[in-house]
Amino acid sequence: MKLTSEDLADLAVGAAFLGTGGGGNPYVGRLMVERCLDEGLTVELIDPSALADDALVIPTAMMGAPTVLVEKLPSGEEAIDSLRLLERYLGRRADATMPIEIGGINSTIPLVVGARLGLPIVDADGMGRAFPELQMETFGVYGVSGSPMVVTDEYGDSTLLNGADNKQMEWLSRMVAIRMGGCAYIAEYSMSGADVKRTAVPNTLTLAMRIGRCLRTAKARHESPFEALLRLLPQTLYNYGRIIFTGKIVDVARETRNGFSLGRARIDGLAGFAGTMEIEIQNENLIARVDGKVKAIVPDLICIMDSESAEPITTESLRYGQRVTVVAVAVPQIMRTPEALDVFGPRCFGLSEPFTPIETMV
Amino acid sequence: MKLTSEDLADLAVGAAFLGTGGGGNPYVGRLMVERCLDEGLTVELIDPSALADDALVIPTAMMGAPTVLVEKLPSGEEAIDSLRLLERYLGRRADATMPIEIGGINSTIPLVVGARLGLPIVDADGMGRAFPELQMETFGVYGVSGSPMVVTDEYGDSTLLNGADNKQMEWLSRMVAIRMGGCAYIAEYSMSGADVKRTAVPNTLTLAMRIGRCLRTAKARHESPFEALLRLLPQTLYNYGRIIFTGKIVDVARETRNGFSLGRARIDGLAGFAGTMEIEIQNENLIARVDGKVKAIVPDLICIMDSESAEPITTESLRYGQRVTVVAVAVPQIMRTPEALDVFGPRCFGLSEPFTPIETMV
Repeated sequence: MKLTSEDLADLAVGAAFLGTGGGGNPYVGRLMVERCLDEGLTVELIDPSALADDALVIPTAMMGAPTVLVEKLPSGEEAIDSLRLLERYLGRRADATMPIEIGGINSTIPLVVGARLGLPIVDADGMGRAFPELQMETFGVYGVSGSPMVVTDEYGDSTLLNGADNKQMEWLSRMVAIRMGGCAYIAEYSMSGADVKRTAVPNTLTLAMRIGRCLRTAKARHESPFEALLRLLPQTLYNYGRIIFTGKIVDVARETRNGFSLGRARIDGLAGFAGTMEIEIQNENLIARVDGKVKAIVPDLICIMDSESAEPITTESLRYGQRVTVVAVAVPQIMRTPEALDVFGPRCFGLSEPFTPIETMV
Repeated sequence: MKLTSEDLADLAVGAAFLGTGGGGNPYVGRLMVERCLDEGLTVELIDPSALADDALVIPTAMMGAPTVLVEKLPSGEEAIDSLRLLERYLGRRADATMPIEIGGINSTIPLVVGARLGLPIVDADGMGRAFPELQMETFGVYGVSGSPMVVTDEYGDSTLLNGADNKQMEWLSRMVAIRMGGCAYIAEYSMSGADVKRTAVPNTLTLAMRIGRCLRTAKARHESPFEALLRLLPQTLYNYGRIIFTGKIVDVARETRNGFSLGRARIDGLAGFAGTMEIEIQNENLIARVDGKVKAIVPDLICIMDSESAEPITTESLRYGQRVTVVAVAVPQIMRTPEALDVFGPRCFGLSEPFTPIETMV
């Protein structure tokens, strides 16, 4: 499947939605790929099922705090160096690249890498959303090693890292990214086609496009984009969603610490929603509580959207006074197993509340 | 030249002296090599002039704050992994290893690596003393790249780093070492035999042994070890030294910050020395002032020694109440060129005073 400019616009919106607040500014990511299309390059997706079992797939991405990304814009080509260095170390050329997460900029970095190198991009990812840390991958949950990993920057620095485990890989590479200026370009979780089929969350790039298209066409038809979205979800692996709050942002606390954007947003209820919702953030929205009661919790999606335009709002763009609608969405089963929750469930973020699926939350 | 147990004892003392306060506890370093001798292994030095021009030399070392080293003791074998990984990356086996600095533990790490791998150890180093940062090498001053560099820890983590320059290499690897627990094992500045001859400070391992032997034999003869030492220096590349202060340590401020041991020591004068000497420390002793007037300044050596035993005292062992004699020594000309002072002169440590050779200091 070859992507068009309209696909990219839809993808940017859908990936911002699936990014659950994280993944960086979607507009920047879209511009990076638009330029490839303008130059006549091809952005070609490949379905995971179409990969040869012995194909070599090298995912590419950025790492860093979203608050830094918006001030230090990438061209998207920087991650090519990371992929090339990993190929050199592995002694083999990649047959495809792939996103590590579906969210903001990291949905589009591999599109640029693929377009520039003439590689297809696997329509799948390892988070099924965005997460703040690199061990939080279904790839790793189901046994793929994140190492060897390459971290590069735009100044010619590079690091090839082998972590004792994926958490050590995150721990070491995070500081390298900080010293590289707060964000860096990576290639990691190199794996076979068979491993992609076994461990990736499938078809999330096309899902993001479907979500973007759904919102766009509903608005064009003057229908509620929220209702259209909630009708779409049951036709996907993310088979349940609902509006958990509507209100006005009255407070945003945000700081960049240890290489992450940390913070919380407070939303006063409107339109029949009483009380105040508080959302905790580590790059992504992790938990939503109303007056202390949990309304949705990681890894389920918590998406803050503009109540008028239904545009997803990423964490670094939250502002006082915005009228927002908060949508929570069930993640696919592969992300809710005990092994998965051990790696990116609530406890991994220091939350004491247990994971409760959004569809069973009262 | 094959080292004996007595050589090692002398080397430990001499390297602590040349380490000018840094390089970590010399006793630990000595024990590591003693064990190799006990096991029947050979520690063989090779003179730099005996190296083939196309030999591959891979220096090995630890990096980290001396305050951490004394609490996280190495076996010396950890750096073998670093050397092996760098060999793999370079696609070639090393013909010899070498110290990157002559000071404390980093004088003996390569001895263990060499003994265990059956490699000779080049009798030379890249600092002619100890320095706190990895770009502060005569190797780099005269054009050898520190990268590719390998950093490993004892848990199975490893990083292969290519810095845009040697300062970036230091900047990135420092944080990796911090995340590895405050100290780590490295292989860097791989170079040809020709480059060793051109850029290294020669014969510093044997110099350290000569210094240790000089102090030991003077004491055995009930002569002043300080006078014996000052008589020895003019027969070496470090051709001038003098006692710049004698007194009692009245204050030691020390903290471990950004991966370094930072601090200052104050010494009240005794035995004809008036006033108070203050010595500033970043792992090593950088500048000695008496009541604000500079008495010795980096890169010349500033060695704090026990006034009774003439044992060099490394920064992490400085204590209130110690009676000390401070000796300053001229470093070889290769370390005093404008290019060298650009890399490890006073300004590189944030000092505003210019470098003034100890022999011309009034």
